[in-house]
Amino acid sequence: MPIHVTVWNENRHEQRSEKVRDTYPEGIHGCIAAALRSDSDLEIRTATQDQPEHGLSEDVLQHTDVLTWWGHLAHDEVEDRVVERVVRRVWEGMGLIVLHSAHYSKVFRQLLGTSCSLTWREAGELERVWNCAPGHPITEGIGRYFELPQSEMYGEPFRIPAPDEQIFLSWFKGGETFRSGCTFRRGNGKVFYFSPGHETYPIYHDASVKQVLRNAVHWANRPQRSSDSCPMVDPIEPLP
Amino acid sequence: MPIHVTVWNENRHEQRSEKVRDTYPEGIHGCIAAALRSDSDLEIRTATQDQPEHGLSEDVLQHTDVLTWWGHLAHDEVEDRVVERVVRRVWEGMGLIVLHSAHYSKVFRQLLGTSCSLTWREAGELERVWNCAPGHPITEGIGRYFELPQSEMYGEPFRIPAPDEQIFLSWFKGGETFRSGCTFRRGNGKVFYFSPGHETYPIYHDASVKQVLRNAVHWANRPQRSSDSCPMVDPIEPLP
Amino acid sequence: MPIHVTVWNENRHEQRSEKVRDTYPEGIHGCIAAALRSDSDLEIRTATQDQPEHGLSEDVLQHTDVLTWWGHLAHDEVEDRVVERVVRRVWEGMGLIVLHSAHYSKVFRQLLGTSCSLTWREAGELERVWNCAPGHPITEGIGRYFELPQSEMYGEPFRIPAPDEQIFLSWFKGGETFRSGCTFRRGNGKVFYFSPGHETYPIYHDASVKQVLRNAVHWANRPQRSSDSCPMVDPIEPLP
Amino acid sequence: MPIHVTVWNENRHEQRSEKVRDTYPEGIHGCIAAALRSDSDLEIRTATQDQPEHGLSEDVLQHTDVLTWWGHLAHDEVEDRVVERVVRRVWEGMGLIVLHSAHYSKVFRQLLGTSCSLTWREAGELERVWNCAPGHPITEGIGRYFELPQSEMYGEPFRIPAPDEQIFLSWFKGGETFRSGCTFRRGNGKVFYFSPGHETYPIYHDASVKQVLRNAVHWANRPQRSSDSCPMVDPIEPLP
Repeated sequence: MPIHVTVWNENRHEQRSEKVRDTYPEGIHGCIAAALRSDSDLEIRTATQDQPEHGLSEDVLQHTDVLTWWGHLAHDEVEDRVVERVVRRVWEGMGLIVLHSAHYSKVFRQLLGTSCSLTWREAGELERVWNCAPGHPITEGIGRYFELPQSEMYGEPFRIPAPDEQIFLSWFKGGETFRSGCTFRRGNGKVFYFSPGHETYPIYHDASVKQVLRNAVHWANRPQRSSDSCPMVDPIEPLP
Repeated sequence: MPIHVTVWNENRHEQRSEKVRDTYPEGIHGCIAAALRSDSDLEIRTATQDQPEHGLSEDVLQHTDVLTWWGHLAHDEVEDRVVERVVRRVWEGMGLIVLHSAHYSKVFRQLLGTSCSLTWREAGELERVWNCAPGHPITEGIGRYFELPQSEMYGEPFRIPAPDEQIFLSWFKGGETFRSGCTFRRGNGKVFYFSPGHETYPIYHDASVKQVLRNAVHWANRPQRSSDSCPMVDPIEPLP
Repeated sequence: MPIHVTVWNENRHEQRSEKVRDTYPEGIHGCIAAALRSDSDLEIRTATQDQPEHGLSEDVLQHTDVLTWWGHLAHDEVEDRVVERVVRRVWEGMGLIVLHSAHYSKVFRQLLGTSCSLTWREAGELERVWNCAPGHPITEGIGRYFELPQSEMYGEPFRIPAPDEQIFLSWFKGGETFRSGCTFRRGNGKVFYFSPGHETYPIYHDASVKQVLRNAVHWANRPQRSSDSCPMVDPIEPLP
Repeated sequence: MPIHVTVWNENRHEQRSEKVRDTYPEGIHGCIAAALRSDSDLEIRTATQDQPEHGLSEDVLQHTDVLTWWGHLAHDEVEDRVVERVVRRVWEGMGLIVLHSAHYSKVFRQLLGTSCSLTWREAGELERVWNCAPGHPITEGIGRYFELPQSEMYGEPFRIPAPDEQIFLSWFKGGETFRSGCTFRRGNGKVFYFSPGHETYPIYHDASVKQVLRNAVHWANRPQRSSDSCPMVDPIEPLP
């Protein structure tokens, strides 16, 4: 049975900047979707912020096993009822892959419960992404490290709860380091934050990044689902 | 230097029910405040939901080292801007003690990122609270367990992220068990959830419960404070 | 591809006590092996402490994806070199299911780093095992709880590091509660501790217990393997 | 009441190498002890591996609130009964600061339950230590980062369980990054691993490193103590 993935993108930079369109002619979501479609176990659809209900109707989410999320300019414009819907689905068991500047998305902040603040610098500098977890499903096929020649620097302190697993740490030529790959559990849902990614640097064209995304989708997928409601209960019958 | 504690209470049951007023003539906040005042290291003030800004102005919170929170009937009426203010203060380092039915408070749910759902039954049954962490500051002076002759049952599944520390587990005569004392960190803030407590059962008059509350305040207090903003940074100077 | 499971048993009670032989004519390992063999995805072998190298040669462990461990009387007689071999394999990614009194096994204590102490009482009393994690792979097919009419009580404080996930909590008729199902990660290995089980109470004949064991094997299995050695490294080449 | 600190050192490099003696005329332990003595709340003694019982008799440990540990050449020569004694004291509540190459000490590996493997290179290169936890007691007085002009590189993957808190991350000029400050709890004991340190690079003369050590001692100190034994228990009396 295929894993149903919805690739969500804010899709605003693409409307405003020719440079972004040059880098991502099909949009960032198009690029990510193509990376995932190369894995025949995955069935991909895309959704963007300016669609009705941000493309994330109840029906779409009910048929999504793993959701990937990219946003930057318009976090505040994401409607609270859609945020709540996504969060509820994560609690029930939908996987969530949070990408790059979506550290500040409502969805991620609500799930983590911290500010998710970090430092940053756009200087197109080298990022070396270290594999802290060889043998982990998310790092399958990834060697000791991979490099992104031009990247936006994300730096510590990264204001998140202690991750369940540290998958990647990044080294930046300018002198910073960052927890660039982290896992979390919330309810039945598995969450992976992966910081590499930018609207003009062609990060999502990188073969290692694509591999990580495919791996992460497989890791985050969970066949079981569970409602999250716990009603008041009757007294349990007299004990033996 | 004293620890400044603000004891917050929804204070609605007290207005509506004579039985509650009989149990807590000074309000639940009054009873908790008295328990804490017996510790001369603590300086106590109270605040209630129907005060302006719910009694939690920026100024009050700036002078609060540890906040205790009791709510039940009117979680939804707590204004989002006050919730945000409390959450931000926790991130900066204010301690937070979340009591009983406040598992469903906006503040707790936003900090934890899960539904915080649980099962419950009001049958005035025996609760035996087990000490899972002898030697921990929160259990100082508490023996192997203590008992509450009449308690509201709270049961599993309790939909929280895995606690940092399991301090108490409760056993109920009716047949359930519950993670009744749990710690979490969010930003610089230390959070303790403690489930015993009810508006008519006289839980906050119990000597062991009072001891736990005093201990928890000491544990949650953190002298350091830290802003939580991480601005964009300039390139760091050329390396040696 | 099948999951290769090795069911390990100390197998000493079985030699000494007719009552144990009556309960487990094929040994505890035989009963557990039969429970697992009913799942056609699993390929089962057994090993016991009195075999050469405790039945856990390098070759056996190299062909084991998940190991289950039951011991009680003779933890100290397990040779350190075999313990080290098992621990190393867990680090590389072998799953480990630790059962009942094996909380005091060398393998579990070495992996957890705590005393793993607990309280206990043999009074053949009712144990009600609560499902704290509906939707988790280990609880698939398990309802809100299941009961064991005659069980050995295991109680708090259970001296373990905070579990990654709380899967089960047990309630005992005599008045105790216990963290009876806990997960941990060590290196690439997934570890599940499950406390129900005893040499004379027929716990491993219980349908729910069998279901949990099968689920846990699937959960603990990890296709990837990774060596755990990190040699000194040469300077990385000059940066671009 | 002062905090009683025992500064432990293998003290072998000092016997063998003039260069080490030049860097640390009083031994590494002497340098660390001096750094701690500048804090009048701390009462310091030292102990070294070649003393009887490695200087860590039952009596010494009973009067130690926090132990710091430096070792490198002779981990294997530390007697198991002393390791067990130290580990047991940590479980009871003694703080432990594990320094640099002591990641491979028996004590640390036994407490963590993983291989504690890492990569390394001795090239006297710049290490920039980032503060990931502003507001945490261990980082009091430490700015956004501090630098060590000549350091031994320690790199990922660092084979540890997920830390409770990420306090520092290090960036190395040669291109690596490392989780250089991590906290863990084991039993009642608080453990801090801090990787900066070397026998010839004068790391322990650095003012920021000294500050971190003093902070860590205060953080790891826990007034309460608790035995760790849980005997078989009698049935609890009939319930009300």
